Amino acid sequence: MADNIPDIVIGRLPVYLRELTRLSEEEGKITTSSHELGQRLGISSAQIRKDLSHFGEFGKQGTGYHIKYLIDQLQEILHLAREWKVVLVGAGYLGHALAHYRGFQDRGFRIAWVFDNDPAKIGETLNSLIVQSITELEETVEKHEVKVAIIAVSAEAAQEITDRLVAAGISAILSYAPIHLKVPSGVHVSYSDPVVQLQRMAYYLV
Amino acid sequence: MADNIPDIVIGRLPVYLRELTRLSEEEGKITTSSHELGQRLGISSAQIRKDLSHFGEFGKQGTGYHIKYLIDQLQEILHLAREWKVVLVGAGYLGHALAHYRGFQDRGFRIAWVFDNDPAKIGETLNSLIVQSITELEETVEKHEVKVAIIAVSAEAAQEITDRLVAAGISAILSYAPIHLKVPSGVHVSYSDPVVQLQRMAYYLV
Repeated sequence: MADNIPDIVIGRLPVYLRELTRLSEEEGKITTSSHELGQRLGISSAQIRKDLSHFGEFGKQGTGYHIKYLIDQLQEILHLAREWKVVLVGAGYLGHALAHYRGFQDRGFRIAWVFDNDPAKIGETLNSLIVQSITELEETVEKHEVKVAIIAVSAEAAQEITDRLVAAGISAILSYAPIHLKVPSGVHVSYSDPVVQLQRMAYYLV
Repeated sequence: MADNIPDIVIGRLPVYLRELTRLSEEEGKITTSSHELGQRLGISSAQIRKDLSHFGEFGKQGTGYHIKYLIDQLQEILHLAREWKVVLVGAGYLGHALAHYRGFQDRGFRIAWVFDNDPAKIGETLNSLIVQSITELEETVEKHEVKVAIIAVSAEAAQEITDRLVAAGISAILSYAPIHLKVPSGVHVSYSDPVVQLQRMAYYLV
């Protein structure tokens, strides 16, 4: 695997993968081009070719990309040829939405455990997953060597949960808490805050 | 207002704003420095000073930033001195989570209308909002001159909903549908797809 590839390039690969999957599964296409892919994603074809060139030669002059082959390669690059089991912390409204989200299917991830600290929620069933007590968090993460977690708890609780997840062995966290989390180097955090996204767009509104 | 400021700079301002608000409201601080802010956010102090310098002089050598003043200025820059009423389309699990999300409060946005096309959901109450029929979407957007929408519908429905929103006057869309949306220039779209975020991190997992 090539080293030192900018994270912004890595960040576009899942978007290419998603669109290629749509082209293949929903439109039955066999081949595509950087031009077609770029048109569909609002990205220049030169950018797509440059991004992919970090990892090898995937297309042929004139015939373009064989979609299924490129999907396989991108899955390999992103370590998605396996399924990552995910720990979800927080069984509130957002936890419900995540546990029921069908978009995880066939994309490399599956929420396999849900935890909460609220006695009213523990034992509840979310899309066939039983909400477990947060006291069982570390044991589960360690026993199953879980690497990926989603945090759907309040800003107040998020750092403590993060510390516990990291101590138990988690190294990738998707956080919906509206707070910057402190983690040791080697642990990756991705944030989802609807207000931050809306505020960024509001700059452009008159 | 300065022109041609990179969107990546604009994207960091809401994160600064969020952290400054925490410093002020939860920790009672009056002043801060680019160094302190950078430490808390994992961003270099030089980056923060450079980002803010696009918009004016907010700090003083030696004393740093007066937090409340900087909050006011950032709110002004991002057009958050007013409250943006938001249309939410989709009253499924995610719609429920968004309608109940307390994080919108005092941050410039309020979900004021919720729409769905499912007769079983229309008339339901989500956090004191009554789910309206999608047939009333355009009328509501036009009547109240709504500019901001959140899409929490399936990939299959998202483009049609987007087209209807844009035709009715919406110019900023936060979409949770796992699909790239086509919009005319001048309309801003921000995406939230947990799988894209998880896949990007998986690249770094061994």
